[in-house]
Amino acid sequence: MTDLAERFPENPLLRPEDVRPSIEGLRVECVLNPGAFRHQERTGLLLRVAERPAPRDGFVSTPVLDPCAENGVRVLEFRTDDPDLSRLDPRVFQYRGKTYLTTLSHLRLAWSADGVRFIVDEEPALIGEGRMETFGLEDCRVARIDGTYCLTFTVVSEFGIAVGMATTSDWKAFQRRGVIVPPENKDCALFEEKIRGNFYCLHRPSAGAIGGPYIWLAHSPDLIHWGGHRAVAATRRGKWDSNRVGAGASPIRTDEGWLAIYHGADNAGRYCLGALLLALEDPSRVLARSEEPIMEPVEEYERRGFVGDVVFTNGHIVDGDQLTIYYGASDTAICGARFSIRGILDALSH
Amino acid sequence: MTDLAERFPENPLLRPEDVRPSIEGLRVECVLNPGAFRHQERTGLLLRVAERPAPRDGFVSTPVLDPCAENGVRVLEFRTDDPDLSRLDPRVFQYRGKTYLTTLSHLRLAWSADGVRFIVDEEPALIGEGRMETFGLEDCRVARIDGTYCLTFTVVSEFGIAVGMATTSDWKAFQRRGVIVPPENKDCALFEEKIRGNFYCLHRPSAGAIGGPYIWLAHSPDLIHWGGHRAVAATRRGKWDSNRVGAGASPIRTDEGWLAIYHGADNAGRYCLGALLLALEDPSRVLARSEEPIMEPVEEYERRGFVGDVVFTNGHIVDGDQLTIYYGASDTAICGARFSIRGILDALSH
Repeated sequence: MTDLAERFPENPLLRPEDVRPSIEGLRVECVLNPGAFRHQERTGLLLRVAERPAPRDGFVSTPVLDPCAENGVRVLEFRTDDPDLSRLDPRVFQYRGKTYLTTLSHLRLAWSADGVRFIVDEEPALIGEGRMETFGLEDCRVARIDGTYCLTFTVVSEFGIAVGMATTSDWKAFQRRGVIVPPENKDCALFEEKIRGNFYCLHRPSAGAIGGPYIWLAHSPDLIHWGGHRAVAATRRGKWDSNRVGAGASPIRTDEGWLAIYHGADNAGRYCLGALLLALEDPSRVLARSEEPIMEPVEEYERRGFVGDVVFTNGHIVDGDQLTIYYGASDTAICGARFSIRGILDALSH
Repeated sequence: MTDLAERFPENPLLRPEDVRPSIEGLRVECVLNPGAFRHQERTGLLLRVAERPAPRDGFVSTPVLDPCAENGVRVLEFRTDDPDLSRLDPRVFQYRGKTYLTTLSHLRLAWSADGVRFIVDEEPALIGEGRMETFGLEDCRVARIDGTYCLTFTVVSEFGIAVGMATTSDWKAFQRRGVIVPPENKDCALFEEKIRGNFYCLHRPSAGAIGGPYIWLAHSPDLIHWGGHRAVAATRRGKWDSNRVGAGASPIRTDEGWLAIYHGADNAGRYCLGALLLALEDPSRVLARSEEPIMEPVEEYERRGFVGDVVFTNGHIVDGDQLTIYYGASDTAICGARFSIRGILDALSH
């Protein structure tokens, strides 16, 4: 057992019943995978709130954003005995070769004075807008760059799964910056300072005919346009991260290198956390990588839920040596855990 | 029959036997999918040359670039009766869940005074370099922007299929610009002039969990970093382009809009050409699209070859109303055909 996490005794911090539905007729199924940040002495989380209509016997449904629909959401229903329907897992189903999500996600703010007890806003902060986001917004990372908060999140539509960006300085007005990485891509984490004159990010193209869900690096002059894409970390056969890997929140500058927390899943779909150490002046150079996870799903709330055996992070707060990770447990609820950055570095195999 | 192409009577213009292998021990299996350009009164083609070792009974092989190997190429061989091997089509096979190409491609120049009779260089112009290109370079598009030739091509490695860029002004020295669009992506065609202050390109993410092989648009301040990604043309159920679509060479400026030639394949893998008309000031707006192909594989050399029933273009030359398309026929040889741009516009359904 290599788990280095000191979990909050108050876990889970936020559960679906703690969040008010955004629209009448939908219910909150999951609250998960928050971005995390500090703003004016408070800890902020940007929650992913996944909603759907109450289930109806004999039907499966997908809520889709549609500006022409009442409340802005249209619900498509399919009979479960329809031969054109195939149900894949709790999150997705296919109908006539097209894939649909069972829930519709938006991003919601929650605030705390102590980093443990959070009060959730009544209304969404960001919802899907336009043709590229009709299936919603997911898993937002928050980076603070030159005093501006830069939000990178998953946008989903019938056209694919990609990375969208927005910026804010006051958490009231948000500026949309478009899709910054094309499909299929998720898990985009910005470095919070320039390296040799360029901005950098980690991102995660998904599997195609060749390659796999590996972590890539890219650079940018302006955070909006990206190039110089290179793979930095692939999956590892036979290990805890054999099936997919993806970056967590912004890599943390340490004297030894950029410490990037990442998630890895094995072929059974069990999600753990690990770490990469990237060279300070050239983050495409991997100096070290966790042989064993630094955190595994072991608690009841991590083992059972909408999708069991999942710890997934895209938000953390750094205070000196203390790293507070906020994470989605079983794709259902939000939890917290503390780590020693020194402890993670010591556990890395150089 | 809606085929608008006036094929060259000299077709095929270039066949595998017209190209000298780049390395002893490999033979040229296919010469296909050329980029096309004018330089100093001559027509240039940048051919894709696909090579492999002579087949050995009972084995399938993949040539991979490896700077440590003799000649720079290492050949991996697998027994055809190995239960871990599965052969998908003539181009690819899988071994233990990893996908390999049966051929290794590089880019080679060919020159012509009349656009019909070409002399092929003895040596490659561009070969794969570094970790992102070990499986080679494919299907180069050539755009001329501010007097510089900008080359966008497919780079392939175990990490995925993505879009690389290089520039040249003399076709002797090439400047590498890295991977400009991350995997899985192909078919990147640059617009040859800025639109409202930005460069633009069409590109083609491949299928993922959601979405499909659709044509997307992006913009850039410098041709190297790209953002503002948006889908512009999806596949169409039941039509000739039901399975995949991808841009040809640079969109052509006309009074009515940007005319983009594209390829579409149906579920049987039959590749045809069609056209899109995009708004001049906002190329994300599709004004018209071919209901029927403008060119279909009908000639013997288009119907039979390494992969039959394929016409595929990523290179053309514009002379007033005349559009000369160079194309890969059956993934085996290079052919030419002339079109009237007015004729294509008239055939578009507005």
